[in-house]
Amino acid sequence: MKLELSKPFFTQTLSILGVGLIGGSLAQALKRANAVGHIIAYDQNESALASALAMQVVDQIETDLIKAVTNADIIILATPITEMGAIIKIIYPHLKDKAVISDVGSTKGSVVAAVQAALGFLPQRFVPAHPIAGTEKHGVENSFASLFDQRRVLITPHIENNHEAVTMIHSMWQAAGALTEEMGIKHHDQVLAATSHLPHLLAFSTVDTLANLDDRAEIFRFAAGGFRDFTRISTSDPNMWADICIQNQESLLEVLHQYQKKLSLLENALHNKDKQTIFEVFRRAKHARDNFYNET
Amino acid sequence: MKLELSKPFFTQTLSILGVGLIGGSLAQALKRANAVGHIIAYDQNESALASALAMQVVDQIETDLIKAVTNADIIILATPITEMGAIIKIIYPHLKDKAVISDVGSTKGSVVAAVQAALGFLPQRFVPAHPIAGTEKHGVENSFASLFDQRRVLITPHIENNHEAVTMIHSMWQAAGALTEEMGIKHHDQVLAATSHLPHLLAFSTVDTLANLDDRAEIFRFAAGGFRDFTRISTSDPNMWADICIQNQESLLEVLHQYQKKLSLLENALHNKDKQTIFEVFRRAKHARDNFYNET
Repeated sequence: MKLELSKPFFTQTLSILGVGLIGGSLAQALKRANAVGHIIAYDQNESALASALAMQVVDQIETDLIKAVTNADIIILATPITEMGAIIKIIYPHLKDKAVISDVGSTKGSVVAAVQAALGFLPQRFVPAHPIAGTEKHGVENSFASLFDQRRVLITPHIENNHEAVTMIHSMWQAAGALTEEMGIKHHDQVLAATSHLPHLLAFSTVDTLANLDDRAEIFRFAAGGFRDFTRISTSDPNMWADICIQNQESLLEVLHQYQKKLSLLENALHNKDKQTIFEVFRRAKHARDNFYNET
Repeated sequence: MKLELSKPFFTQTLSILGVGLIGGSLAQALKRANAVGHIIAYDQNESALASALAMQVVDQIETDLIKAVTNADIIILATPITEMGAIIKIIYPHLKDKAVISDVGSTKGSVVAAVQAALGFLPQRFVPAHPIAGTEKHGVENSFASLFDQRRVLITPHIENNHEAVTMIHSMWQAAGALTEEMGIKHHDQVLAATSHLPHLLAFSTVDTLANLDDRAEIFRFAAGGFRDFTRISTSDPNMWADICIQNQESLLEVLHQYQKKLSLLENALHNKDKQTIFEVFRRAKHARDNFYNET
């Protein structure tokens, strides 16, 4: 479902919990659009807070969670996904009545479950969301206002959600330049396991396999441009990605299993010098990739 | 071993058998350097020949192999690797005495074995080589003069090689803008299995796995930039890559086996929600990748 906006989005006070690449870029994108009056940032990392303030990405910084949220109209959880349950438990009693909470986590089932477990219920005004944007770089220093331009934000409402709250999160992300769509929570996790979590796991695996070979120094020296592209995502934050993999365990194991079956098929074909089987896999892959991106 | 040139390289007549991306780019690079008097191109594909002539990439086109080589001082095999044995068998009796033959194949053990099998011996003036350059695009239409600039060309001499012939191939590639190095044949195949052949096989496998899922249309729609980079090499020529995999069967199976062990380790860790194991693999990979490329 795509929502069209009738009037420009504006929120008076936005609180961003965690100012890294995503939190920092969201702040900049909303400021660019004049869509926010005042932005408060909370982070455990004081130097990230200092950078965010120095970069004028945010207007106020707080190391106290509760102070960071009491005046907020919208609260965005942009911390590691593993911390979101604990944070919502702390802040929830201190929020304004109509405050809307959302998050930017890469997994949705585990975040919703953590919130449910932390509070014992799912707040009507907690709207799970996931901006599909980012780079392999992290930190507020690498944030920029156009990160979400024309990128998709998946909003995955839960059954208790208030419609106005969901609409507000659509509007906020659209003001930030993104295209918003809704998707089921489980479906989101399956799709992202395939397109994001599996590729990251495979890129990390490839580089670590090569880094353990005897002639690793030469191996990297003689790598060409294709290898550089293929392994770029392995420069992503290893801690964040280990968390994401575990938090999306079920869907990731499912698609990993499909992938291992494909690899075994190719291994057997290679053993038997069965070119036709190898060619068919490669041909179908090229066809699918060419069809979905029209890169020239 | 790196060779330094004492005087500029020049060859009167160069014959390129197969004018695709590599053959066409080599022709352009040598013309740019005024390193060649006359370039003859042979190809089975007459439209490729016509394009090469129209683009002024070559000076003469031939559909007859023997006519293409009788006057040549250097002959470059730039055909599919599976055809190189048959071609050298046809052309060898018709070459000038001092003519030097080289190739651009991505595998070296199989090419040398094919030449040995075709002729019954290894010619002193056949110098196996492999320019580590290319793009996922193919065909002479995509060729360009700077493709090899600062790229490595691996020269893998065999035990019968004539020193002057090997030196000439170094000089030719240096004139084309490349950095040349020598490497053992088997070692070349192991290094390339790890850095090129395995990544291609994995990229094709990933895309084909996703393309077989029920929600494949959505899956590609929600893929982000990381996925695009990770799968770019799956747009490469599937026929050429199926050949390369089979021609480098032994080394590729070896590194594929290492990779599958790494995947099984991660699969088990994921099953057990063992974050430490996953994190360690990801961390080592990031460290290795960051160390070898200083991308900012």
